[in-house]
Amino acid sequence: MAGKKVLIVYAHQSSGSFSAAAKDAAVEVLAAQDCTVEVSDLYAMKFKATATAEDITGEVKNADHFCYAEETKLAWEEGKLCSDIMEEQRKLTQADLVIFQFPMYWFTVPAIVKGWIDRVLTLGYAHSPENRYSQGIFKDKKAMLSFTTGSPESMFSANGINGDMNVTLWPLQNGILHYCGFQVLAPQIFWAPSYVPPEARSTMLEGWRKRLQGLLGEKPLSFTPLDCFDGESYQLKPEVCEKHATKEYGLTVGIHLGKALPPNSQMKAGV
Amino acid sequence: MAGKKVLIVYAHQSSGSFSAAAKDAAVEVLAAQDCTVEVSDLYAMKFKATATAEDITGEVKNADHFCYAEETKLAWEEGKLCSDIMEEQRKLTQADLVIFQFPMYWFTVPAIVKGWIDRVLTLGYAHSPENRYSQGIFKDKKAMLSFTTGSPESMFSANGINGDMNVTLWPLQNGILHYCGFQVLAPQIFWAPSYVPPEARSTMLEGWRKRLQGLLGEKPLSFTPLDCFDGESYQLKPEVCEKHATKEYGLTVGIHLGKALPPNSQMKAGV
Ligand SMILES: Cc1cc2nc3c(=O)[nH]c(=O)nc-3n(C[C@H](O)[C@H](O)[C@H](O)COP(=O)(O)OP(=O)(O)OC[C@H]3O[C@@H](n4cnc5c(N)ncnc54)[C@H](O)[C@@H]3O)c2cc1C
Ligand SMILES: Cc1cc2nc3c(=O)[nH]c(=O)nc-3n(C[C@H](O)[C@H](O)[C@H](O)COP(=O)(O)OP(=O)(O)OC[C@H]3O[C@@H](n4cnc5c(N)ncnc54)[C@H](O)[C@@H]3O)c2cc1C
Repeated sequence: MAGKKVLIVYAHQSSGSFSAAAKDAAVEVLAAQDCTVEVSDLYAMKFKATATAEDITGEVKNADHFCYAEETKLAWEEGKLCSDIMEEQRKLTQADLVIFQFPMYWFTVPAIVKGWIDRVLTLGYAHSPENRYSQGIFKDKKAMLSFTTGSPESMFSANGINGDMNVTLWPLQNGILHYCGFQVLAPQIFWAPSYVPPEARSTMLEGWRKRLQGLLGEKPLSFTPLDCFDGESYQLKPEVCEKHATKEYGLTVGIHLGKALPPNSQMKAGV
Repeated sequence: MAGKKVLIVYAHQSSGSFSAAAKDAAVEVLAAQDCTVEVSDLYAMKFKATATAEDITGEVKNADHFCYAEETKLAWEEGKLCSDIMEEQRKLTQADLVIFQFPMYWFTVPAIVKGWIDRVLTLGYAHSPENRYSQGIFKDKKAMLSFTTGSPESMFSANGINGDMNVTLWPLQNGILHYCGFQVLAPQIFWAPSYVPPEARSTMLEGWRKRLQGLLGEKPLSFTPLDCFDGESYQLKPEVCEKHATKEYGLTVGIHLGKALPPNSQMKAGV
């Protein structure tokens, strides 16, 4: 992993939190392997979360009917995005791996992380209709979610009341990370650190440190490749449905073919 | 519907947008039926999206290790939440129906809406371990998502490249709305208004106006009731799995029992 560049997009208000400890562990272990690590500490940066016209320096093209995607695409092309977005894009462009480290808020990322996603992954820069999913712009980069929860693992199992964690993570892992082309590494989930004994917390952090050592060598989660879909309708080609109906090869089969995965299979993928 | 109170949590930067037109239609049709309608126009309000210690007026309990959920719960109990949160909670407490109107950003709500969710649905006020899901605090209220997309409907079908929209909406509809007890009305989805001819846009708005007239009489989406789950492990009770394996009665069956719903069945539920 020597020479690799890692960006950690980190969101917690407190440096005494478990999330901070997970972030610190990543910085330490990766740096010890001669990776270059940058951390975007979103709360410390008072990162702006909302997608507004101020994200463009100078005049917008159509102030009367402001369309965020089109305006920011143009601003990106013309080098007119505001400086905090440009700075994050610089970090992202250089990174071989992006780790999102956050406490789960309402079954997804906290708003400040969503703001990073909405604002930094600009149309044109991070994706386009021609370049998405397995043809995505960041297909040579890896990305992963690393997060803490309040709920125990059982609540997020297939028969648990919160539903399968695979389903909950679909919009993030498929809709954002895979959409931009990232090779998605299995999520690192720290279950309910507030409710377990101190030893269990240490064990979780130890597991993470150990995983970090081989992280960049892990096999990413599999998603159905773009060419399995019809180019016009973006529907799975009938022959693909048939071929894969009998085999399980990753997350999207569970979603795309309506077949339940063994509980938490995704979490174990690639580990 | 006369006398009912409706809160529209609305997020678009432009009053000339299709999202604005959808919001305006709701205000007009509901007001014509003697509903009281309040609109939280989040961008116009410059709504703060990030969950920080400033959400509490005065001193926080543990500044060294700030825990947002615990600190805001306490602040809510002591009337020390900051004024914009208190104002949104006042509107929400009075509302019989909440409509979230937004453009889909990255398979979910824009960060500014996520900020409203993270900050307004305070622990204690909106949910507690004792009061959630079908025992949730807002079980006498209704809520729904109303949103525009960039993608056409086919991409969000079960075999479409984005996966089934039911799956994408699970974290929002189950993890947030149903979690707080809301009766969740079927989502109103305006597919790709930017890419359809003007007549198709008018037809979509007409359909929405028509739906709005009977909205509060609609049957909500069904979710597996809390007592179908074991009280300790929060796993579906085995007898429930068996009983429901053969029948489809709503969204959670698709998720909880790993059975594919007919494409877009959820969108049609209750309409
Ligand atoms: C708005 C909101 C929405 C939420 N929605 C959800 C949801 O949808 N689903 C869900 O499951 N949860 C949810 N939660 C709960 C949230 O996910 C958890 O509170 C959070 O993930 C806990 O992680 P933390 O880093 O904040 O832990 P902390 O509370 O900071 O830490 C947990 C414990 O670890 C200890 N610790 C710190 N450093 C170390 C170390 N180096 N070694 C060992 N121990 C250490 C701390 O002292 C503490 O005792 C929500 C919370 C909020 C505020
Ligand atoms: C950060 C970001 C992330 C995104 N992620 C996703 C995603 O994950 N999935 C996805 O599908 N899309 C995504 N999109 C696209 C986005 O969802 C659409 O651009 C948006 O929903 C379109 O709705 P709008 O209200 O902005 O439409 P507008 O662009 O404002 O309007 C569309 C058309 O309707 C016209 N119109 C306005 N008022 C009326 C009226 N009264 N009657 C008739 N026509 C009218 C307008 O003039 C315009 O021609 C994303 C966009 C951004 C910026």
